[in-house]
Amino acid sequence: MIYLDTAASYPILPEVKQSLNEAFEHYYANSASSHLLGGQVSDEINKVREQLADQIGAYPSEIIFTSGATESNNIAFKSLLLGKEVSEDKKHIVTTQVEHKCTFAICDYFKSIGYEVTYVKPNKGGIIETDAVTNAIRPDTAFVSVMHVNNELGTINPIDEIGQVCFDAGILFHSDAAQSFGKVDIDVDDINVDAMSFSAHKIGGPKGIGAIYIRDLRKKHLMPVIHGAGQEDGLRGGTVAAPLILGFGAAIKYFGKYYYSFKSKNVKQYFLSKLKAENVIFNVNGADTLANCLSITLPETDTDTLVRKNETLLCLAQGSACSSKEIEPSHVLSAIGLTREIADKTFRISFPLNIDYASMDKLADEIKVFS
Amino acid sequence: MIYLDTAASYPILPEVKQSLNEAFEHYYANSASSHLLGGQVSDEINKVREQLADQIGAYPSEIIFTSGATESNNIAFKSLLLGKEVSEDKKHIVTTQVEHKCTFAICDYFKSIGYEVTYVKPNKGGIIETDAVTNAIRPDTAFVSVMHVNNELGTINPIDEIGQVCFDAGILFHSDAAQSFGKVDIDVDDINVDAMSFSAHKIGGPKGIGAIYIRDLRKKHLMPVIHGAGQEDGLRGGTVAAPLILGFGAAIKYFGKYYYSFKSKNVKQYFLSKLKAENVIFNVNGADTLANCLSITLPETDTDTLVRKNETLLCLAQGSACSSKEIEPSHVLSAIGLTREIADKTFRISFPLNIDYASMDKLADEIKVFS
Repeated sequence: MIYLDTAASYPILPEVKQSLNEAFEHYYANSASSHLLGGQVSDEINKVREQLADQIGAYPSEIIFTSGATESNNIAFKSLLLGKEVSEDKKHIVTTQVEHKCTFAICDYFKSIGYEVTYVKPNKGGIIETDAVTNAIRPDTAFVSVMHVNNELGTINPIDEIGQVCFDAGILFHSDAAQSFGKVDIDVDDINVDAMSFSAHKIGGPKGIGAIYIRDLRKKHLMPVIHGAGQEDGLRGGTVAAPLILGFGAAIKYFGKYYYSFKSKNVKQYFLSKLKAENVIFNVNGADTLANCLSITLPETDTDTLVRKNETLLCLAQGSACSSKEIEPSHVLSAIGLTREIADKTFRISFPLNIDYASMDKLADEIKVFS
Repeated sequence: MIYLDTAASYPILPEVKQSLNEAFEHYYANSASSHLLGGQVSDEINKVREQLADQIGAYPSEIIFTSGATESNNIAFKSLLLGKEVSEDKKHIVTTQVEHKCTFAICDYFKSIGYEVTYVKPNKGGIIETDAVTNAIRPDTAFVSVMHVNNELGTINPIDEIGQVCFDAGILFHSDAAQSFGKVDIDVDDINVDAMSFSAHKIGGPKGIGAIYIRDLRKKHLMPVIHGAGQEDGLRGGTVAAPLILGFGAAIKYFGKYYYSFKSKNVKQYFLSKLKAENVIFNVNGADTLANCLSITLPETDTDTLVRKNETLLCLAQGSACSSKEIEPSHVLSAIGLTREIADKTFRISFPLNIDYASMDKLADEIKVFS
């Protein structure tokens, strides 16, 4: 079995498993409890808060733990737009055609309560150009949300430039960093971002935990998404999931190192040259992409048979990334101009960082058979 | 170290640890992925959904997994009241003075958007009487929320009677079962409940996972709290946290058995008779309480010194339960008529189910020293 779907969920790193087990053993108390064990748990949570803050150039007080990037995206939009951070006559949102589907669901909600939304189109390489965002901004724009790295293409957007445009225009800027965190350097000040969403399970941490950065969080008037008993500065209710947070911390500590080492091995280039040597016809989608993510179209390959015959061998995403059970063609592939037929012949291959060359040879061989 | 704060968070059961580790190893894929591993993960999630549904007499399609009971409570109020399930002229909510603090935060939010809230007072035993709820209901009442078991007293409310009243009046009824699930039998049809909240970490499962039951969920027009990419019937976005759910499943399977066995040992009675034998003066708060939860006032004891001297020995809750760092006196103890001074001399002792008699002897001895 070759697992090539790490962008949907990365297998838990061994170091994370160890951290989780230690936490299950020692840090089971409720961090809100006033006794010794509660205090220890609270301290451990705050160490990870500092670690994450350090990693992105933020203050620990600007980090809130959530159940994952989807919840963080919800908080970004709802806490900022439904709090008292934006004047009430500003009801225009700018986002893109290639966001994660949860962002579309959030925007649909805002449309239902009187907002207008502009969806910026990417260029043919799948990149959201700064000018396209600039052109979409209006005097009543309250909020801009552009993902850092796209989940289907692995494309890296110029969010530092976009952040500058938003900063200059006095507009709140959010970026979903679920796919970039741990792979691309992030400095919230360089990017001029007001809110940023993070996920643990995309970098070998556990599912069910993530975080959101909100600039000057304590000075803002924010609307919680999950009202609770005062946890996380009153912004996110619910017993703080300490063991998951410690696992997240281990993922932050180790994933980046593994990614750096993977990047230096040029795995993607090796795989593509292998396909070329086998005379497989292919197109690579997306410019400026992550080292471990490849969107590839195989126009001459019987991809349906390839997938069916290999269902116990290959785990990869055909069509949409995070909900690939969908029947509709991927909105991302449509946005970069692929027809439905071509989109159906397109795969996202997202490599585990410890993949060996033999697995890539095998993958190329399998593709060759049906081409 | 004697951990007596299991109502705040129960240490993870060994069987749950094993289940979590197996899931981390084998079920790391995204359950929304169309490949074999994704399908396996989805199947495993649905087995736990069936298990939970069976346990409470519901259909699996009526169960949504959440990050915990606080999120579930948010969904209960918001999805039902802000969806299209209640006519717009009904803007009155009935709840109680002894709910979990998150319910107060949710009610404050509803007050800010034009709702009125009546908080029913418990009787002196801490019980919410059915008549008190009946008297609070008005023609414009949209929603009643009464917790099943109180988290500070362990009192069990007559929610089946309250559910009948709501059913007869055509009012939606929600109950927070975070503290009762696994300890008190629940049948959603007997209770006539429309929504019910569950937590894993109160029964030895992991923090960061819970569930909500919503009657006829698929037939209802509900407003999501976390908008997402279609997961959990569109009601709860975010990658479904499969390993945590499998851990929750193991907790559901084993906790009830341990609780049943604990109950038969009359641990609380043993402890109280021990205190009596030591001539310690005490009052027990709350009538009809759980077997492993005890709210005890020690009016003649120097409780501050007891707590301070024992901070490495005893982990128990003084004052409020789930956020005992609070400076204010417990709202639950106030509601049953305890003065601040007496509340400060009150503890919630929530026993682990495997506690031995020697630990209880030690606890009674420690209390004796400062009495």
